[in-house]
Amino acid sequence: MNGSHSSRKKPRKKIVGALLFPEFELLDIFGPLEMFGMLSDHFEIVTLAETTRPVASAQGPRSVVDRTFADDADVDILLLPGGRGTRREAENPVLLEYLRTLYPQLDYLASICTGSGVLAAAGLLDGRRATSNKQSFAWASSCGSAVTWVAQARWVTDGNIYTAGGVAAGIDMSLALIARILSEDVASEVARYAEYDWHRDAAWDPFAEQAGLL
Amino acid sequence: MNGSHSSRKKPRKKIVGALLFPEFELLDIFGPLEMFGMLSDHFEIVTLAETTRPVASAQGPRSVVDRTFADDADVDILLLPGGRGTRREAENPVLLEYLRTLYPQLDYLASICTGSGVLAAAGLLDGRRATSNKQSFAWASSCGSAVTWVAQARWVTDGNIYTAGGVAAGIDMSLALIARILSEDVASEVARYAEYDWHRDAAWDPFAEQAGLL
Repeated sequence: MNGSHSSRKKPRKKIVGALLFPEFELLDIFGPLEMFGMLSDHFEIVTLAETTRPVASAQGPRSVVDRTFADDADVDILLLPGGRGTRREAENPVLLEYLRTLYPQLDYLASICTGSGVLAAAGLLDGRRATSNKQSFAWASSCGSAVTWVAQARWVTDGNIYTAGGVAAGIDMSLALIARILSEDVASEVARYAEYDWHRDAAWDPFAEQAGLL
Repeated sequence: MNGSHSSRKKPRKKIVGALLFPEFELLDIFGPLEMFGMLSDHFEIVTLAETTRPVASAQGPRSVVDRTFADDADVDILLLPGGRGTRREAENPVLLEYLRTLYPQLDYLASICTGSGVLAAAGLLDGRRATSNKQSFAWASSCGSAVTWVAQARWVTDGNIYTAGGVAAGIDMSLALIARILSEDVASEVARYAEYDWHRDAAWDPFAEQAGLL
């Protein structure tokens, strides 16, 4: 989808940072990156991690790290996935401090699945509304007592912080964020190209009830 | 989801091979790998590529290669993604020969998006029914004149070969394949955990009409 939405003045592309840690959930991050990555005139993707060592996902496949926390990543939009590894990262002072330091420079901060537990542990959700994976809702919500946790939501927006429900919910959230940054038409076109049945309603969430949260 | 479906005799896990090539489409492969990867008692994921060098996706992020074509990968289920790179791979004799050599040992061969164009170029779809991405249907179908190309389908099954429509369609196809290998209940559980709105009907496909194929 290059070229169709390019502007005459060629503004700098927005940098989408994908934060990786051991045992991240594959689809949590690669669903959103597919959506942003399709708009390569507007967004550039950079993978970020604590060290340069390739990062193994919870499902096995390993990803290459573009920049470490020590580099100036110049990130505009930060995406934080969930996955088993969040239980460790929520107690990793290096990662929590990185999130706190990076946040003020971001246009948007977005988590998927149990990534919101890590954001809560960093204190970044204090006083805000947020959601998480419905199967692991108890764990995520235990990470921040000053957060208003919303059990039934595909995703929750509070200012410039987006938190999505489990795994696939990150795709819907990303399309909503693309609609906000660019336009609803562009987001629809991305969903159509990906043959993805976009749930545009942030309140759509049959999974909360299935998980016994209502 | 470990443990809940383990059998007493511990049969060997099925190896799911994810074939990577430069400019593969991220979600084409990581959507399916999320679904199989969640069932780590049953499936083990191995990334495969022509060389050991990390492979850059069409969206940018690079993946580590577990085994090359020269290794004995012992694959049971092979997944072939689409993406811009398929235009080159459909004319890559090394990859086409690898597919032809591997196919007889496979339980299942599955493509996502324009991956079916590559399978067609390898001659593996001759005399079979298949589908592809709806935006690139003309290209994919040009790769095999002895194939019965089905324009409106979320995915198509012909014997042990599965071909999915564009990008997200690969997730639905993978859940159908998991239902066939294990059970419908296990596949439903995977979809629920991933908070994915599974389209179980292989004939569901609004994208064919949107692409002007009907």
